Amino acid sequence: MSGYHAPVEEMMFTAAHVADLGSVQSLPGYEDVSTDLVQQILDEAGKLGSDILAPLNASGDREGSVLENGTVRTPAGFIEAYQSFIEGGWNGMPFPEDVGGQDLPWLVATAASEIWHSANMSFGLCPMLTGSAIELLLSHGSDDLKATYLPNLVAGTWTGTMNLTEPQAGSDLSQVRAKATPDGDDYRISGQKIFITYGDHDMAENIVHMVLARTPDAPPGVKGISLFVVPKFLVNADGTLGDRNDLRAGSLEHKLGINASPTAVMLFGENDGAVGYLVGEENRGLEYMFTMMNNARLAVGLEGVAIAERAYQRARAYAAERLQGRAEDSKGPAAIIEHADVKRMLLAMRSQTEAARSLAYWVAGQLDAAKRHPNADARAEAQSFVDLLTPVVKAWCTDTGVAVADLGVQVHGGMGYVEETGAAQHLRDARIAPIYEGTNGIQALDLAGRKVVRDGGAAMMALISRMRASISEMPTTHAKLNAAVDALEATTAYLVESPGAAAANAVPYLRLTGITVAGWLMVRGYESAKISQADNPAFSARKIASVRYVARFLLPEVPMLASVIKDAGTMIADCSADDV
Amino acid sequence: MSGYHAPVEEMMFTAAHVADLGSVQSLPGYEDVSTDLVQQILDEAGKLGSDILAPLNASGDREGSVLENGTVRTPAGFIEAYQSFIEGGWNGMPFPEDVGGQDLPWLVATAASEIWHSANMSFGLCPMLTGSAIELLLSHGSDDLKATYLPNLVAGTWTGTMNLTEPQAGSDLSQVRAKATPDGDDYRISGQKIFITYGDHDMAENIVHMVLARTPDAPPGVKGISLFVVPKFLVNADGTLGDRNDLRAGSLEHKLGINASPTAVMLFGENDGAVGYLVGEENRGLEYMFTMMNNARLAVGLEGVAIAERAYQRARAYAAERLQGRAEDSKGPAAIIEHADVKRMLLAMRSQTEAARSLAYWVAGQLDAAKRHPNADARAEAQSFVDLLTPVVKAWCTDTGVAVADLGVQVHGGMGYVEETGAAQHLRDARIAPIYEGTNGIQALDLAGRKVVRDGGAAMMALISRMRASISEMPTTHAKLNAAVDALEATTAYLVESPGAAAANAVPYLRLTGITVAGWLMVRGYESAKISQADNPAFSARKIASVRYVARFLLPEVPMLASVIKDAGTMIADCSADDV
Repeated sequence: MSGYHAPVEEMMFTAAHVADLGSVQSLPGYEDVSTDLVQQILDEAGKLGSDILAPLNASGDREGSVLENGTVRTPAGFIEAYQSFIEGGWNGMPFPEDVGGQDLPWLVATAASEIWHSANMSFGLCPMLTGSAIELLLSHGSDDLKATYLPNLVAGTWTGTMNLTEPQAGSDLSQVRAKATPDGDDYRISGQKIFITYGDHDMAENIVHMVLARTPDAPPGVKGISLFVVPKFLVNADGTLGDRNDLRAGSLEHKLGINASPTAVMLFGENDGAVGYLVGEENRGLEYMFTMMNNARLAVGLEGVAIAERAYQRARAYAAERLQGRAEDSKGPAAIIEHADVKRMLLAMRSQTEAARSLAYWVAGQLDAAKRHPNADARAEAQSFVDLLTPVVKAWCTDTGVAVADLGVQVHGGMGYVEETGAAQHLRDARIAPIYEGTNGIQALDLAGRKVVRDGGAAMMALISRMRASISEMPTTHAKLNAAVDALEATTAYLVESPGAAAANAVPYLRLTGITVAGWLMVRGYESAKISQADNPAFSARKIASVRYVARFLLPEVPMLASVIKDAGTMIADCSADDV
Repeated sequence: MSGYHAPVEEMMFTAAHVADLGSVQSLPGYEDVSTDLVQQILDEAGKLGSDILAPLNASGDREGSVLENGTVRTPAGFIEAYQSFIEGGWNGMPFPEDVGGQDLPWLVATAASEIWHSANMSFGLCPMLTGSAIELLLSHGSDDLKATYLPNLVAGTWTGTMNLTEPQAGSDLSQVRAKATPDGDDYRISGQKIFITYGDHDMAENIVHMVLARTPDAPPGVKGISLFVVPKFLVNADGTLGDRNDLRAGSLEHKLGINASPTAVMLFGENDGAVGYLVGEENRGLEYMFTMMNNARLAVGLEGVAIAERAYQRARAYAAERLQGRAEDSKGPAAIIEHADVKRMLLAMRSQTEAARSLAYWVAGQLDAAKRHPNADARAEAQSFVDLLTPVVKAWCTDTGVAVADLGVQVHGGMGYVEETGAAQHLRDARIAPIYEGTNGIQALDLAGRKVVRDGGAAMMALISRMRASISEMPTTHAKLNAAVDALEATTAYLVESPGAAAANAVPYLRLTGITVAGWLMVRGYESAKISQADNPAFSARKIASVRYVARFLLPEVPMLASVIKDAGTMIADCSADDV
């Protein structure tokens, strides 16, 4: 009952009918990525998830990572599981072959990433952060840094971290104070960083920290922050590991969840300063970070999907086994899945999970198009959708993850509150995702401000046009979807005209956007399902139930939120701090 | 920052302007309960909460209750805190003077109970359960049982527990299997009970278990369950404590929250059988339980209000201190409370807390009228409102507690995920309340089925009439409130006509009801505030902001939910288990 089985059929359906796998397969370099190959990859990933990662999820939570004798020890089994993971080549899925990667589409890597996080979110965070470090170096590293670090990072024998946050610099990175003092060709880094996921651990030979810091003459604010590679062990000219660098994990946080994943306070330069290597140019560190952040935010959004899927599987299995009360048509005891309100909760869980997956996978497919489409206009449009929807994937999918995990606890009744059952862990784990990698409030401001108001709503209106064109080709009318798209359009126009109302209404606007776009994608999938899944009536019936749930329970929120936003206007922004 | 301060001004406002304290004061026996006295009581309760109970909340969570050498040890400080609590006479507030109580209105006891649970929910559960045992004995106990047990229970030197659940009998108590074998005038009880809050502990001299069990010839199902008093220590004829009874705590659950509160597996009759005393008549145990359950459900609803208040206070204090980013009109760093989205979250937290408090207190006032009003029709009407709204208080207020505590974590950003901050504990603690004392799904079925469909909607329509009459007396028009009341009426009529749609839509119907009734009460309070609080402009401004939030963000959900329910109809009920 505590097991996890990758929903490969559903993933393949979403990839094919929602996320345009066919288009991805026609991109240059992806011609050999056949649908059969994708299926095989996900089947294999599913085995690793079920057999190796999922069994360590509860034990890892109980045991936690601990700091002892100056280094972090991960829970029992994590070292071996990580070895299996990198030996399978999973760490390098979307990265270029010339640095040892598999050069697979982001859409496929995204589906695999869902599996790691469903099976064991605490585990999944380590390769996720390594991936961010790889992207930073691929985009902005010198040839020398690439040659020194990328092969081991892509192979996974070394892992990466992101060192951004300091006690006074959280959402506001302009306050970063860590110092980088020039020292010959290199720098010496000193300062304290907090909330560093896998800042230290025992699963890899070396840890490559990507650190934001200020050089002595740097201007204040965001334009004076540089990015440095600061390895745990220095790397000799021949590629072997040399001396320990001047950095260490000072303590680990005691957290609500993701307990197997060490969250470290990192202390740099307590002695002579940690040796650091500049990435790109001085003072452009935050700019580089932002090029990486899109993918990291998509990855965190995926965590919401992943935990939702795991919570759904657990709740459904429990509901099918737990006898309590009687079914309406029966005299004997019934499994609680026969009760209408339990059906409601399970259908709500699965439908929202599928909706979130639809959105996340579609954006992953757009990311592939943005990187590889032969037509520049098509690349630009795909990139604009990625930019526009990245905060929506991050925030809406992670809010969905929490909501679904919360329902999973409720399906279990009293047993859901008992830790041994496992439902509560999913809720605890899920709860970080709306916070890190930019809180969901920050995501909403990014959407409403930077992505919508700043360009006069152009990108959103282009997406709305795309949705309308797609809807017009559908054989049936979807009134609730049409109403949602109209409401999204009207609200977008309102915020563009009334930017003073944007900040306080950004969160409901993001939710409205997420439901509308995911609702459109679910309906598209439904229209496909009517045709292509006719040979699998059980799958088709479930998909139709999900789409109906989304249409009847979620889409009606959109016109309501639109009118709430217009009615609220600047009401909240006008409140003084004393009023709230 | 981690402190708690009872919001006595807000409580007094809610009592006076929302919950009809004036009417309660005119009830027989309550003539001496002046407004000044109520204020003094709440001020004193607030001191106990702030000075004694709140400081043990985090330490109690960390330490937890532990089972060692066969008995349960509560966390450091709990024994002394409980002594202070009972020495102050707080345990007996609403109970009759002839058994040592204070004979105060339930409305006042409810406000005090909010304070205990805000300060330390794990602590508050012990007197709450003792209160349930007292009510059972007051209503159904023999004179002998009353004389033997009530004085100590009311004084708090002994505590009470409810032993209902067994592994196979949770929401469905018809499956209870614990045995009660006649033995002379008494019975011998054997069997296992689970999820027994304060089933054992070290704060009182004796523990009086109220246990559901079956006699040998009892009919199957709910009509064969009897209720027994089963004390931890037998009581001698002279009232002193005698032998240890044959019962013990076998283990404690490892829970998501309320860790200071021991949740025990209770083992009865491992040797000769635990001596038990029948309450009332055989086979009527479940009926007796239900007479008590209303109050227990109101008390659990209050826990939602209490945790929401505490979470709000903590989040607001943090937001006022934490500097991050810049305010719109300022060049320097700003406290995050200046940011529009943080204002939105704090206002959402406070408004929903006030709305939930309004509903809970109003029902408490109705409970006083139901018990004491000199006019039989008035008593009957008040009781019908209590019966109707008890599941709404239980479920909607506890859902609100979780939602508000969740926002509290979010306001803290990364610090919210770190346990030392305390925000996460409120979320963990709050999460039990939608589960125990009947899950919120069960509450919704109680509302939609037993309370609405069964009487053809009569009680709900009476409440709607009461709301309409009140609204018609208001000097201003409240369009969103009117729309909500209309939607409640239409949905009630729909469910009465289409009972097949009731079960699967019960949860949204309960939410719709909660928002509408609480929204009405908030608007009533607002109309009062405009007049009576003119001398306190800061309070008045906050109240107006809360009411506006409720009107603009919550009430619009009601017509949407009404249309969702009608559209959904029997869609979910018609799904097979395979579809969900």
